[in-house]
Amino acid sequence: MSGPPEGPDFSLADVAREGLLERPGAEPATHDGTGRVGLAFTVRTAAEDGAEAPPAVRDVRVPPGVTVFDAASWNGIAIDSTCGGHGTCHKCRIRITTDGPTPVTRHDVRTFTPAQLAEGWRLGCLLHATRDLAVEVPPLTTRPKAATVGIGRQVILRPALQKRYVELDEATLADQRTDLVRLTDAIDDLELTADLHVLRRLSTVLRAADFKVTAVIIDEALVDIEPGDTTGARYAIAFDLGTTTVVGTLLDVGTGTPLAVASTLNAQQPFGGDVITRISATMMDPDALGRLQQAAGATLSSLAKEVCREARVDPGHVYEVAVAGNATMTALALGIDPEPLGVAPFVMSAAQPPSVLASELGLSLHPRARAFLFPALGAYVGGDIVAGMLASGMDRDKRTRLFIDVGTNCEIVLSDGETILSTAAPAGPAFEGGAIRCGMRAADGAIEVIKVDPHAEGEDPAVTLQVIGDVEPRGLCGSGLVDAVAELVRVGLLDASGRLVPEDDAKDIAPALADRLTRIGEERVFVLHRPTPDAEPAECVYLSQRDVRELQFAKAAISTGWSLLLEQLGLEQRDVQQVLLAGSFGSYLSPASAVRIGLVPRLPVLRIVAAGNVAGEGAKMALLSVRERAGAQALLEEVTYVELSDRPGFNDAFVDQLSFAP
Amino acid sequence: MSGPPEGPDFSLADVAREGLLERPGAEPATHDGTGRVGLAFTVRTAAEDGAEAPPAVRDVRVPPGVTVFDAASWNGIAIDSTCGGHGTCHKCRIRITTDGPTPVTRHDVRTFTPAQLAEGWRLGCLLHATRDLAVEVPPLTTRPKAATVGIGRQVILRPALQKRYVELDEATLADQRTDLVRLTDAIDDLELTADLHVLRRLSTVLRAADFKVTAVIIDEALVDIEPGDTTGARYAIAFDLGTTTVVGTLLDVGTGTPLAVASTLNAQQPFGGDVITRISATMMDPDALGRLQQAAGATLSSLAKEVCREARVDPGHVYEVAVAGNATMTALALGIDPEPLGVAPFVMSAAQPPSVLASELGLSLHPRARAFLFPALGAYVGGDIVAGMLASGMDRDKRTRLFIDVGTNCEIVLSDGETILSTAAPAGPAFEGGAIRCGMRAADGAIEVIKVDPHAEGEDPAVTLQVIGDVEPRGLCGSGLVDAVAELVRVGLLDASGRLVPEDDAKDIAPALADRLTRIGEERVFVLHRPTPDAEPAECVYLSQRDVRELQFAKAAISTGWSLLLEQLGLEQRDVQQVLLAGSFGSYLSPASAVRIGLVPRLPVLRIVAAGNVAGEGAKMALLSVRERAGAQALLEEVTYVELSDRPGFNDAFVDQLSFAP
Repeated sequence: MSGPPEGPDFSLADVAREGLLERPGAEPATHDGTGRVGLAFTVRTAAEDGAEAPPAVRDVRVPPGVTVFDAASWNGIAIDSTCGGHGTCHKCRIRITTDGPTPVTRHDVRTFTPAQLAEGWRLGCLLHATRDLAVEVPPLTTRPKAATVGIGRQVILRPALQKRYVELDEATLADQRTDLVRLTDAIDDLELTADLHVLRRLSTVLRAADFKVTAVIIDEALVDIEPGDTTGARYAIAFDLGTTTVVGTLLDVGTGTPLAVASTLNAQQPFGGDVITRISATMMDPDALGRLQQAAGATLSSLAKEVCREARVDPGHVYEVAVAGNATMTALALGIDPEPLGVAPFVMSAAQPPSVLASELGLSLHPRARAFLFPALGAYVGGDIVAGMLASGMDRDKRTRLFIDVGTNCEIVLSDGETILSTAAPAGPAFEGGAIRCGMRAADGAIEVIKVDPHAEGEDPAVTLQVIGDVEPRGLCGSGLVDAVAELVRVGLLDASGRLVPEDDAKDIAPALADRLTRIGEERVFVLHRPTPDAEPAECVYLSQRDVRELQFAKAAISTGWSLLLEQLGLEQRDVQQVLLAGSFGSYLSPASAVRIGLVPRLPVLRIVAAGNVAGEGAKMALLSVRERAGAQALLEEVTYVELSDRPGFNDAFVDQLSFAP
Repeated sequence: MSGPPEGPDFSLADVAREGLLERPGAEPATHDGTGRVGLAFTVRTAAEDGAEAPPAVRDVRVPPGVTVFDAASWNGIAIDSTCGGHGTCHKCRIRITTDGPTPVTRHDVRTFTPAQLAEGWRLGCLLHATRDLAVEVPPLTTRPKAATVGIGRQVILRPALQKRYVELDEATLADQRTDLVRLTDAIDDLELTADLHVLRRLSTVLRAADFKVTAVIIDEALVDIEPGDTTGARYAIAFDLGTTTVVGTLLDVGTGTPLAVASTLNAQQPFGGDVITRISATMMDPDALGRLQQAAGATLSSLAKEVCREARVDPGHVYEVAVAGNATMTALALGIDPEPLGVAPFVMSAAQPPSVLASELGLSLHPRARAFLFPALGAYVGGDIVAGMLASGMDRDKRTRLFIDVGTNCEIVLSDGETILSTAAPAGPAFEGGAIRCGMRAADGAIEVIKVDPHAEGEDPAVTLQVIGDVEPRGLCGSGLVDAVAELVRVGLLDASGRLVPEDDAKDIAPALADRLTRIGEERVFVLHRPTPDAEPAECVYLSQRDVRELQFAKAAISTGWSLLLEQLGLEQRDVQQVLLAGSFGSYLSPASAVRIGLVPRLPVLRIVAAGNVAGEGAKMALLSVRERAGAQALLEEVTYVELSDRPGFNDAFVDQLSFAP
């Protein structure tokens, strides 16, 4: 066995057989949510004195087909790069130390000598991980910046938005390069493209600024050319476009720092409180779509103005926005007819909204500012959930985790560290305060926490309320509702079937509370707060039997959802290592109450975490890192959507879950 | 020597050494205009009875780096394909029968078995020709359509604009694919992208049309979705955007048939007759650029309306336009400041204008119709010349050919079958009728052909004129000017230095013409036409001594241009096998006169061909074939621009060329 074989015959067959070239199996099409590959990173770092420090070792698991560079980025491991993974800067050099053939691209051939290729050197951004690999990362030549975003995730800053200051040679008869080539020659680690708008400005700005200019770049598109050095002014806005509330965060993408945050009610409210009423509005009135789109634009625009004013940032220096919204909010903001989302079989136009100008969303920022809208997994597992999964690292954690975004529509995601399933459960309006007699939004005057003491005596209060804004209670928000029901179940005033116990039994069970059990008309109610000692029940804040039924159906829908997902992965409730309760509702909900009514699996409360506004955090991450943005898009391939209504066992499971039995 | 070698070490080094993967040298960057590769095609065809007919053999030469598929297309050899060379349809199968390694792409690995790869089978659209190759083309499975365009060139129809009629399954709960995926799954040989505008229509049109729709596609962009089957309505307009005259041709891109042609004067005329005066207008008046852009748009728009009306085509079914114009016309049409084109060092913003919507050019066609604008080689060798080179096949002919577009600015291209050089010569306004005493445009009343008989007697005319429109002569157009000068040189009334001979000598040399030699004020003139027998010289159509000087300078500039290009390739005048005279001026010019005054090399007149409106023909080709469009773009890399003013020998050569000596 010596020397290379002769002729193309052998080599070619060998190439195909040895898998030195990519095969169909290496494509992202295999991201069917099953099976991951393990990457063992050995990260070398140069010590202060120039010598090498002991390498750090990190094991990560990623879906097959992800590039080594992405896998590292997503796990906070920095590899040199300036081009953003397009194979053009040739800086992301890594070495594969695992035996066996590793694909070679033409960029690799250009970057490395045959000896280096044989040693395993490759460009990390072009190498797709299709099997377990040991990867050596050389010391960084530049120190990457990082920011903490999401649920404590460390994001390596590599925003799509870049600025580059260049000083160019002026043109001469001996150097008649076009203005565009002159500029792109000076930024040769990127393959820049220019549209008409920037070409209209290019020659004028270059000459007015003595060929000293700043190129504004998004991905590889040259979006503007500014006189002088403006690299310090790089801003973007992350939007969480909720059905009820919209939040905007102004970011300095150069540092990852949030400079200002503002929130407001979605101006689409007059068309209805939830997505279904807004979709209905478009079906009944041909003008409604246009008006809803305008309302979305006005909402985003008012927030943009507010955060820019607060941080004293020129809106013309905001070049990108990211928007995380559910599928209906996203469609309405883009002026896409939402009707197919609202009627069976619930179909989206497209999972990934197209890249549009921010001005298409009604925003007055830099005239060529871009908008990235998060993709959706389905009509009812939208871009807000994808952003939330990104922020909570649902696809990058080996633990078994359950992510629940509770609202009118409830989205549930379950990952066992290998497979990720998602589904949507129609929880109904209970959690938004709708259909609940004394229900209200989580605003001033809403009862959000309730404790009852069935045997309180004397000065001790039988009912302790925590009210938003510390004012006179006006109603019950979603978390208060859950608390109220959980407390009444706990003390036995609500039985396992969800029925308020007879008044006679109540006196034995909870003497201090029995007088609060009364009727309004035919309906039995439990009074939570009396404005005056002799107020009629109807003047009080109370929980009615029907309210309990509403919640009961909502929690049954949700718990049926996660039960079936657990079943599909062969897991028990106790296997879940973390439950993330997302959305503003999740932040208010008491983990103990959620467990008690069975809204979440029966687990120690420490395993149940309020994740806060994860959609907004995901939007920030998409602005700070193109790798994270790619991660959001990878979720589309990685997550399997489970349609609950299709499943034979759904009705049985639902009936089981109606029970409040512990 | 047996069995495959072991371990990655050897195989990888072997791969790199054997050149099985692409190397830097294979890139278009090597198109420096020197050296070509030869491809020997053996084209198999299935005979009527299903048996195989004897193969046709064709040798072609192309610049290194061109794909085998492009090389075949450009030379009228059809290879199966539906995707347009993106590597997605996997139909363009060819076999390389030359020994030696041939690169394998991942698409090849997916398409062919290892045995087939070893036999030389590859996808033609992904194989770059970097060395001489013998290529076997299997019989076609579909018969390609072709059209004859340009100077008798056969163009295989593969327009960027495609329509596909599809009947889709309606969505169900069990099949919740997005509307976009449902559509793209049905058109899986293309990788379609959709922008916001088409997404806004998609779901509505799909449902209104019972999921039976026609997708309108340009390249791989889905630009519209139309109810029902509209595949028959596929139109595009080719524009030759001249400084003086603009021509529009409406094409059915499905058949290649021109349906209507219209021409009109460029509405920018009031700003000046040539590019320099129009550039000056923008420098003096800040509003002028906007008005010039509007005028260009109005001109294109009026032509579009006219051709659509004439052919009874709905402008909404015109989805693409191609525009061939010089660099200044192109910049003005796009609203790009032309100032840097007009002042040294004559720099363009970009060689390749961006792809824009036709509406950006002021056209009211399909709202998402696209415009392709030809790229330019330099500020004075513009997109019109690139289109002309494409139409005349300057880069696909082994002959030594000279292409001359005569106008205020004269563009010259020389190819020896391997290397292509181009330059621009400032001919001045002589050929447009400007600065010539009796000069006029080639319109009714213009003398375009002149014959003189120095010894005419009796009834025989001493001067025979051919006049455009067969009306009373009113002036002299460019071709008439050349004829007049050539005839006077021929009979000796103009000496080699360009001076009209003394009146006394004239009587001996040309007795029948001597009375026409007279003076207007101080200046000597030769009268061509007397409106009445006793008309004063100033009332006549005449050629003045200064007119002769104008032409002399123009022809000296032009002939210096091609002389220096010939010199650079080491060629003599007699080596030129064909001279193409382009533009409307070229069509009127008498080859014999052009030779006689030295405007073109001294060659048999049969080698001098009026090529007609080659820019317009090039624009048509770009609409009918994406391969031809790629060919136009390849010219940017392939053609070397020669700056004449830089050359040391320029002034000497110019003085030499001033002479009319035979």
